[in-house]
Amino acid sequence: MQYETKKRSIFKAISWRTWATVTTAIIVFIFTGEFALAITIGFLEVIAKMILYFFHERLWQKINYGKKEIPSFIIWFTGLPASGKKALADAVYQQLHKEKLKVERLDSLDVRPLFPETGFSPTEVDRHVKRTGHLCAMLEKNGVIVVASFVSPYQQSRDFVRNQATNFVEVYMKTTVEACQQRDTKGHYAKAQQGEYHYFPGVDVEYEKPLQPEITIEVDKATIEESTQQIICYLKENFINEK
Amino acid sequence: MQYETKKRSIFKAISWRTWATVTTAIIVFIFTGEFALAITIGFLEVIAKMILYFFHERLWQKINYGKKEIPSFIIWFTGLPASGKKALADAVYQQLHKEKLKVERLDSLDVRPLFPETGFSPTEVDRHVKRTGHLCAMLEKNGVIVVASFVSPYQQSRDFVRNQATNFVEVYMKTTVEACQQRDTKGHYAKAQQGEYHYFPGVDVEYEKPLQPEITIEVDKATIEESTQQIICYLKENFINEK
Repeated sequence: MQYETKKRSIFKAISWRTWATVTTAIIVFIFTGEFALAITIGFLEVIAKMILYFFHERLWQKINYGKKEIPSFIIWFTGLPASGKKALADAVYQQLHKEKLKVERLDSLDVRPLFPETGFSPTEVDRHVKRTGHLCAMLEKNGVIVVASFVSPYQQSRDFVRNQATNFVEVYMKTTVEACQQRDTKGHYAKAQQGEYHYFPGVDVEYEKPLQPEITIEVDKATIEESTQQIICYLKENFINEK
Repeated sequence: MQYETKKRSIFKAISWRTWATVTTAIIVFIFTGEFALAITIGFLEVIAKMILYFFHERLWQKINYGKKEIPSFIIWFTGLPASGKKALADAVYQQLHKEKLKVERLDSLDVRPLFPETGFSPTEVDRHVKRTGHLCAMLEKNGVIVVASFVSPYQQSRDFVRNQATNFVEVYMKTTVEACQQRDTKGHYAKAQQGEYHYFPGVDVEYEKPLQPEITIEVDKATIEESTQQIICYLKENFINEK
C-alpha cells in the first residue's frame, strides 16, 4: 500500500505555483497593461493558492478514483534440463526489477532446499510443482509478479499451476535433447545416461512439450538478449503498460 | 505497483480549477473593482491552467519523491491448541482487510494440506514452522502483511521465523491447559490424553512459552473484540500510520 507524504504535497504545490502564477501575471498584464498590478495579484495569489493547493492534494490522497494497480502475473519457464531456463528467467527478472515492479524470482534450485524430502520420481516432481504453484498463486494474488523456472516436465502439473493463477504465461524453451547435452557443463545428462540418475527428463522419462504455450523460445536460434526482448514485449503489451 | 490514470489527472485538474479560478477572480475584483475584467481573466485562466495542470500531474506521476509504502510485517499467533488463535487471527485479518491493506492469512489448517507428508513429531513440526517462515518472509518482502496462526510450540522454530522476518510481531495467547480443554469442542485434548495422538502440546510435549512476545493476550480475561482492538492499536502505532 502506497501513500503520499505531506512533503510531496508541499513540493507539488510550489512546483505548480511557479507555473501557474507566471500564467496569471501574464494574463493580467495583457489585459490591464499594468505591470505593478500584475505582480501584486501574482504575489497574493502565490500565498492564497499554495495553501489551497496543499489541502487539495491532501483531499485527493483520500480519493481512490483513477488509481490502478498494474496486474500481476506468473511467468513460468519450462523446458529440458540445460535448456537455458534459468539464465533467461534471470534476465527477464532483472528487466522487470529495473522497472521498479514488485517481482519475485523462484527457481527449482532455490525452492528444493526448503523441502529436502522431495525426490525426483514423477509423483514427487508433480507434487513439488503443484506446491510451487500454490506459492506462486499466493504471491500473484497479492500483487507480486512471479518469475518461475522449473523443468516441470508434465503437462498435468503445469496445467494445475495455470489453473491456480489469474494470469499465466507459459514460456516453452524449444530445443533438442542433443543441444541440451552439449550445453550441459555439469555433466547431468552423462550421469543420467550411465544410470546414476533416475527419472531424468529427456533421458529416461519423457519431457511433455507444452500444448499451447503463450511464448515459445527458439533456444538454438535466438540470443538470450533477443529472447528477453521477445518476452518483455509480450508482458508490456499484455500486462504492464497502462490501459 | 500503483499508477494514476489520465482520467484521474483530468478530474483533479477540474476540481483544482474550480477552487483556484474563484480565488483569482476575487483577487482581481478586489484590486480593480471591475467585475467584467475579473470574469474575463478568470475565464482565460480556466483554459490555460487546466491544460497546464494536466501536464503537471502527468509529470509528477513519474516523480517518486514522497511516495511511501506502508511497511509490511508478519504477525504470528502462537499458543496451545484451542487457545483461540484462529478466531483472533481471523478477526485481526478482517480488520486489516477492511483498511484496504494487502494482507494474507495463513493458518496451520490451510498450510498442512499442501504438505501431506508432514507429521507431528517435534522435528516435523519444527520443519513445518520454518518452511512457513520462509513463505511468510517472501510475502513480507514483497509488501504483503501476513497474519499467521500456528501452535508453533518451540521457541527455536519461532525464533527462526523472527529472524527471517523484517518486522515480526509475536502474539502469545496466554491461557492454561485446563481452560483450553474446556474450549476444545473437537475433543482433541481427550484423544491426546487417551494416547490416540502423540506429541500433543500441553499433554505429552511441552508448549514453550514465548520469552519476549510483542503482544500478550490474556485469553481468559479479555473478549475477542478487546483483544482485536489491542492488536490493531499496536499495529497502527508501529507500522500502519503515516510517519
